[in-house]
Amino acid sequence: MKAHEDGDQSVITQTVATSAPGPMTVLAKRARLAARTLATSPSSARDRALWAAAAALRDASAIILEANEKDMAASTATEAFRDRLKLTPERIEAMATGLEDMADLPDPVGRVLEEWTRPNGLRIRRVATPVGVIGVIYESRPNVGADAAGLCIKSGNAVLLRGGSESLHSARAIHAAMQAGLRAADLPEDAVQIAPDADRAHVAEMLGAAGLVDLLIPRGGRSLVERVQKDARVPVLAHAEGLCHTYIHSAADHAMARRIILNAKMRRVGICGSTETLLIDAAVAPTLLPQIVADLSEFGCSFKADAAAREIVPTLPVATEKDFSTEWLDAILNIAVVDGVDEALDHISQYGSSHTEAIVTADEAVANRFMNGTDSAVVMWNASTQFCDGGEFGFGAEIGIATGRFHARGPVGVEQLTTFRYEVLGTGQVRA
Amino acid sequence: MKAHEDGDQSVITQTVATSAPGPMTVLAKRARLAARTLATSPSSARDRALWAAAAALRDASAIILEANEKDMAASTATEAFRDRLKLTPERIEAMATGLEDMADLPDPVGRVLEEWTRPNGLRIRRVATPVGVIGVIYESRPNVGADAAGLCIKSGNAVLLRGGSESLHSARAIHAAMQAGLRAADLPEDAVQIAPDADRAHVAEMLGAAGLVDLLIPRGGRSLVERVQKDARVPVLAHAEGLCHTYIHSAADHAMARRIILNAKMRRVGICGSTETLLIDAAVAPTLLPQIVADLSEFGCSFKADAAAREIVPTLPVATEKDFSTEWLDAILNIAVVDGVDEALDHISQYGSSHTEAIVTADEAVANRFMNGTDSAVVMWNASTQFCDGGEFGFGAEIGIATGRFHARGPVGVEQLTTFRYEVLGTGQVRA
Repeated sequence: MKAHEDGDQSVITQTVATSAPGPMTVLAKRARLAARTLATSPSSARDRALWAAAAALRDASAIILEANEKDMAASTATEAFRDRLKLTPERIEAMATGLEDMADLPDPVGRVLEEWTRPNGLRIRRVATPVGVIGVIYESRPNVGADAAGLCIKSGNAVLLRGGSESLHSARAIHAAMQAGLRAADLPEDAVQIAPDADRAHVAEMLGAAGLVDLLIPRGGRSLVERVQKDARVPVLAHAEGLCHTYIHSAADHAMARRIILNAKMRRVGICGSTETLLIDAAVAPTLLPQIVADLSEFGCSFKADAAAREIVPTLPVATEKDFSTEWLDAILNIAVVDGVDEALDHISQYGSSHTEAIVTADEAVANRFMNGTDSAVVMWNASTQFCDGGEFGFGAEIGIATGRFHARGPVGVEQLTTFRYEVLGTGQVRA
Repeated sequence: MKAHEDGDQSVITQTVATSAPGPMTVLAKRARLAARTLATSPSSARDRALWAAAAALRDASAIILEANEKDMAASTATEAFRDRLKLTPERIEAMATGLEDMADLPDPVGRVLEEWTRPNGLRIRRVATPVGVIGVIYESRPNVGADAAGLCIKSGNAVLLRGGSESLHSARAIHAAMQAGLRAADLPEDAVQIAPDADRAHVAEMLGAAGLVDLLIPRGGRSLVERVQKDARVPVLAHAEGLCHTYIHSAADHAMARRIILNAKMRRVGICGSTETLLIDAAVAPTLLPQIVADLSEFGCSFKADAAAREIVPTLPVATEKDFSTEWLDAILNIAVVDGVDEALDHISQYGSSHTEAIVTADEAVANRFMNGTDSAVVMWNASTQFCDGGEFGFGAEIGIATGRFHARGPVGVEQLTTFRYEVLGTGQVRA
């Protein structure tokens, strides 16, 4: 490339210089030092830390529950919110088991992703490396702290945790166990940092910590994710809305189509991989739609349907423009009748969220046209959209589903928490 | 992942809604429509467009030179600037040949990057896909417009070009040839858009075009890159400063070390992959450093040295703190004597720009320790840092060198202008 092209580092230095070094900046600097050690640590040490952290969680069970009671007592939030905040011996055991499962995963660091040799004998390989320091901003759901810290340790990253203010005591008790695990494995405990208190200024400080935090992962509701995406001066790995579509093409096997849409909508309605909108070809709707409506109604599903669908099943409620843009996360299915794959793709590009779409068809050419025609992170052919999940993909634990266009898309497991570098191995070559 | 996690799309919609739809937004929307066609177009059509664009550039040679004369006449800038702005028949021919070389590259779209089968029979594959709409903001260097448009067409992306205001006439004449190429291949000419005039507001509009522009590539000086990184609401692929180091370890072959540092510094001093700082082990500096200074002096190199180096070669000028942080892009070499690989890594982490570092040593363990110990995009063992180049990596044409931690790092060619999606191929599986 040409001369005169620079900037990145200088921007970083500048940003850091002009932002007052608050408590999170201090923690981030310590995390960065620890990250260098973690990045070169043997897989066995990181796995030992996860096992030890699991044991520490179990040992500290009483202390953690006590801390959680303090949080619960102080919380005046809704029941749903309080249920996510609440810890029980079972939930602590689940966190510990989760860490042990991560230890059993293969080491994502150091994988040779690509390797080739140039005519001049230079060997070039692309090697997986840790990201560095990952900032995780999450709501008052204490288990996220243990999951995120575990995934980061496994992938050789240091992590800066900022949990919801109502979970402060619980989060700090869990954090202590994670650090105990690192110490037991002779790894720097600074690799897992947590915000010292509930001050909201800590979030702003993390968003501006370019050069200190390499990646931000917001784990929470729309307002949190929006705020992070709007204000972050650091790359963000965001979990977007899951407005997923299942398209039943005219060449679909009817029994398969009924089985898939029932599962895609109703297996679990509250996860982002659940289907919100059914697109069905006009050619098969008259026979198939009434059966699907009956199938799902049996399980308590309600519907929002366009005019064409209501001509076939007049009892269906009307769908508004807004309904087709709504991620229900509930037992509600939008229905639109379309005339072929292109209309289906148009609908998805207008209302979709680039998360997961599925087509049911026996026609491979149409399936490929559909898969190539969306810009979604995951597309499925003859399968339920509810398969969009790190465990189902074989990634083990996941920190979420990414729907941005870069780095990680779809389920984000430990491999997706790594980046890469090129290693060029020579025997003294110089460039002509 | 859990419910309540969304945001991405809503942010995008919101951003677009609140930003007044100016001319660039209108162009970006047309580009996005064209991108859908380009993304599913056969490789042969995109290659045909590149060949036709090359021919159109040659046919329009007189018109392009005339437009360039207008720009040159109006320009009051420095000679170096005017030289980059200036077009000649040779430079137009080089642009055309560049496009034809891109056509000869393999299609980066649709590559199966990974593929595996789950126990339930689901086949999962990771497939390379175009990014979508790429915004390229560049200085008054008209050839960048042809290169960028060509690389985007090859990789199935639409592109929104905004060249330096002083090159407006040249840029528009080149743009016309690129669109002629698209038409000749029956591809939508909207896939290559250019800012209608030199209004600086167009840049701000591109930076805010979240949801319409998927990736911004600033091609220019530090101030441009800094501004884009600071204000962009869209992912940025930035070319960082190339403050590259070559570390000569005590176990280095002396002849190889001299050959490599001479090439790494002096082959071309103005490119970002040139070495700016030599780190040399105290154990070998007394014998090797005087020879290296002699080697490079012969080619007109001057030096900035730390105290330990000046004890060995007293005539060397003193290096300041600032010198070690300076990308000279000139025949100037910083020299620091270090005591082993860890001191070398400390120096690099303090002064480096995460671009390219090299080690010269016969000790493989030390080489691995060095390569694992930096967070640079490219690390070299026994080779010249000047090999950090798309052509040298075998990528063909490159749009630059990326030093961020995500998506593309190192040379950015057509493969690096793609992202991916997961395709899940089932036989009717539903999730338990």
